[in-house]
Formats: sequence, C-alpha cells, structure tokens
Amino acid sequence: MLETTSKESEGLELIPQLTLDCVIFGFHDNALKILLLKWKGTDLWSLPGGVIRQDESLDEAAIRVLKERTGIDKIFLRQFHTFGKVQRYDKTSIQEQLAHVIDPKLWYKRAISIGYYALVDYEEVFPNPDQLSDECTWWDLVEIPKLLFDHEEILEKALRSLRLELSFQPIGLNLLPEKFTMPDMMRMYEAILGKKIDPRNFQKKILNSGIVVKLKEVKRGVAHKSPFLYKFDRKRYEEVLKEGGLFFI
Amino acid sequence: MLETTSKESEGLELIPQLTLDCVIFGFHDNALKILLLKWKGTDLWSLPGGVIRQDESLDEAAIRVLKERTGIDKIFLRQFHTFGKVQRYDKTSIQEQLAHVIDPKLWYKRAISIGYYALVDYEEVFPNPDQLSDECTWWDLVEIPKLLFDHEEILEKALRSLRLELSFQPIGLNLLPEKFTMPDMMRMYEAILGKKIDPRNFQKKILNSGIVVKLKEVKRGVAHKSPFLYKFDRKRYEEVLKEGGLFFI
Repeated sequence: MLETTSKESEGLELIPQLTLDCVIFGFHDNALKILLLKWKGTDLWSLPGGVIRQDESLDEAAIRVLKERTGIDKIFLRQFHTFGKVQRYDKTSIQEQLAHVIDPKLWYKRAISIGYYALVDYEEVFPNPDQLSDECTWWDLVEIPKLLFDHEEILEKALRSLRLELSFQPIGLNLLPEKFTMPDMMRMYEAILGKKIDPRNFQKKILNSGIVVKLKEVKRGVAHKSPFLYKFDRKRYEEVLKEGGLFFI
Repeated sequence: MLETTSKESEGLELIPQLTLDCVIFGFHDNALKILLLKWKGTDLWSLPGGVIRQDESLDEAAIRVLKERTGIDKIFLRQFHTFGKVQRYDKTSIQEQLAHVIDPKLWYKRAISIGYYALVDYEEVFPNPDQLSDECTWWDLVEIPKLLFDHEEILEKALRSLRLELSFQPIGLNLLPEKFTMPDMMRMYEAILGKKIDPRNFQKKILNSGIVVKLKEVKRGVAHKSPFLYKFDRKRYEEVLKEGGLFFI
C-alpha cells in the first residue's frame, strides 16, 4: 500500500520499489470477511500493506504487517502472486486523492507488490489502523466498497488462489473455532466458494480425508436434532497439508 | 540469475534488486526435460534468468528472457512464486566461482527473484546460451546436475506448482504434438507427476473433461493393435482453463 520512497520504520533501509499487500480473511456469522483500511480523512479503502526492509525476508515482512494490523502472529499465510505491471493503476489520480497524507513527490515511479493472503481466527483479531489510516475494519466479502490502487484485482486473485487451495489442501484450522459441527464447516466452504454445495458428498469427502475427528459431544441449544461436534486431527491435517493433496488423476 | 548492478541491455534502466528465474519444461521421449545454462569456462549449471527493465512488466520480462533462450514467444507461462529470503544462498562462494565472468563488486547485496515456469514444444526450441554461458541444454528431470544459487529450491517449487496445476487445469497443449495417442498423453502426466497412473481411470477422466477429440486415424507403425489418435479441442480446452477447474467439493 505504502509506495513511497520515505524510509519509515525507524530509518531502516528498504528494498526500493518493492511492497507487499495482504488480503486477510476471517470467517464469522457464516460469512467470509476481509480486513480493510480507511485512509485518513477520506472515505477511501484499501488492503493493508507495507514495505520490505533490507534485513528481513518477504515472509518476515508479511508476518510483521499482519501482526501490526491484527495483533496476532500465528497465522496461516500464503504468498499467492506478485503484481508487476508497469502501470498498475492511475497514479496521478491516487496521488491527488491522498496528497494530504503522502507528499506526491515521495511516490516511487513504479512499485511491484507481492501479494499474501492470510486466514485468521476472527475472534482473536484486534484490528489496528496504520499511521496513514483512520480505521481498520472487517468487511463482508459480498459488501466490500470500491478499493484504491489495483486492490480489487489483488483481492480477486487472492480469492481465486484460496478457492483453488480448497481443492487440494485442508483448510479451516485458522477459520473455524476449536469445536464445530459439520454444517459449520460446510458453511465455511460455501462462504469461500461463493456457492452451495451438496451436504452428503461434502461430509463423505471430509470424513474420508481423515482431517476431522468426531467428538462424543453434541452442540446444545440448537433446534431439533443436536448435531455432533468435530475437531481437526492436527497430525493428519498437517500430513495432508504437507503431501499437498488430492490430485484429480 | 544475473544479479548484478551492471545495467546490461543497451543501458536501459533496471528495477534494482529484482530478478527473474525461468524453469522451462519440455516433453520428449517420454521424459520431462528442463533447459539449463552452463556458465562460461566452468562446469556449473543454473536456470535461465534475467533482469526487469523499468519499462516492462514482470510478464513481459519473462517472455523476453524465454524468447532469448528458446527462440519462441508463444509459450504457456506461469508466475509461480517469488523468492525473497535475506540470504538465498552462499554468496561469497558463488562470487568466487564466477569471478572470471562477473566482477564480484557488481553483485547486489541482496536480490529477490520472481519464478516463472514455461511449458514449451521441445521440437520448436532452439536453445541459445546467454552472454555469460557457454551452453544452453535440455536435461532430463531425473538426471539434472547440481544447480548454482538456490535454483534447486526454485526448480522443486516450480515442479510442485506444475503438479498442482495438473489437478485443476488442462495441460499438454504446449507439450504434446498436434496428434497424440492416449498412452502418449498418459506418459506425459506420468513424467510430470513422477509416478505411474491407472490407465483406465485416466482415459475416463480425460474423455469426460471434453478437452480431447478422438480422430478417425490410428497411429501406424506400432506393434500389435494400432492406437487411435486424439487432438485437443482448443475451444473446450480454453474454456476449462478459464473456468479454472475441477474442485474436489
């Protein structure tokens, strides 16, 4: 997001023309949520992002930014794409809109941005604005406002990567509470995929994969039949994650 | 690959500290092949790579490098990962080994590399060394030599990405000849996945996807039964590629 030549962060040296942008996903009330920043004194929104210091890896920079914005550092994090068009967006217009926050002379001529997405536990996050923003807020995926820069493209690509991820890797360890019902898990998949799925097929596939364990408890306070609770089998989950999947062949 | 501050390519300005590396895959004699460069006056091998000019996108830079090394520009190309550890490899040792080709003073303190992989038609490629190498040669995946820099890690990651790609997207349009048999196609999948697959399941899944069309011709000069020839249904292939897949749910 911050694509200026100013050396913020206590005068540490930065890698020139390189930035990162983070798409932070959470799951709450059966909806997929995304964390957005509102620029100071404006109604303009964008993804959280940052710069890369000479003495940190790209992953370390992403973890730092995520911790600054969410307060947590145990996060499922994936680098998904690097955005490198010569003109990623209408720079003149952006510089004007944000001139009260960033001196237009300080912008790089061009910046390349590395995209990361993160899956976080909604309940554990304390959203925290950065020095250039007034607000850091969860937005429902289906209600997000227009985004600055090329951040709609970045979000689109992140979502596409996350959806593909679903097809070959277990997901949910950072999105669901510790104990959950099969309908809870299915609603998470539906929120991410943006479509209804067949409950019987879903349950069969999830159980066959061995990534969840059925508990003896049922969920109380639910109308009609109380559904069984499940939790992730962390060992099996990590194994499947490491094996990297479920090829269609 | 070339991670120096020298401004090659007719004095054009480069993006500092940013490079790209290309894993170029071809398929020949039932084996997956990779194009490697041998550094001048050495027996040291690495992946082809290059720099990014201020006036070109990352994709354009990758297409330029691929054209320079292979002579072709219609290529299936995928950006798969950006490599950004602070110390990607033992720089002192590399600088010594290559001191006769690159002045050790010209190396960047640190470079970030964007990884691309390409699938090309082996028959159409004319391998062409760059200004720092003596040879540009196809190597069989199972016989490749030790690679310089962190290029073994880059190759590993490219292969992993290609294998995942197989599970949700059609593949082969750039790797197989125009007409091919079902066993030809299966051997391509086996070469990429590095394992045997079940022929009946394979044929059923490929035919169900609609990406290939059975021709009336059979392949001649083969012992016993002459197998039918197939070709890709380009329209359907592009559709499936665009839809992006086959989710397991």
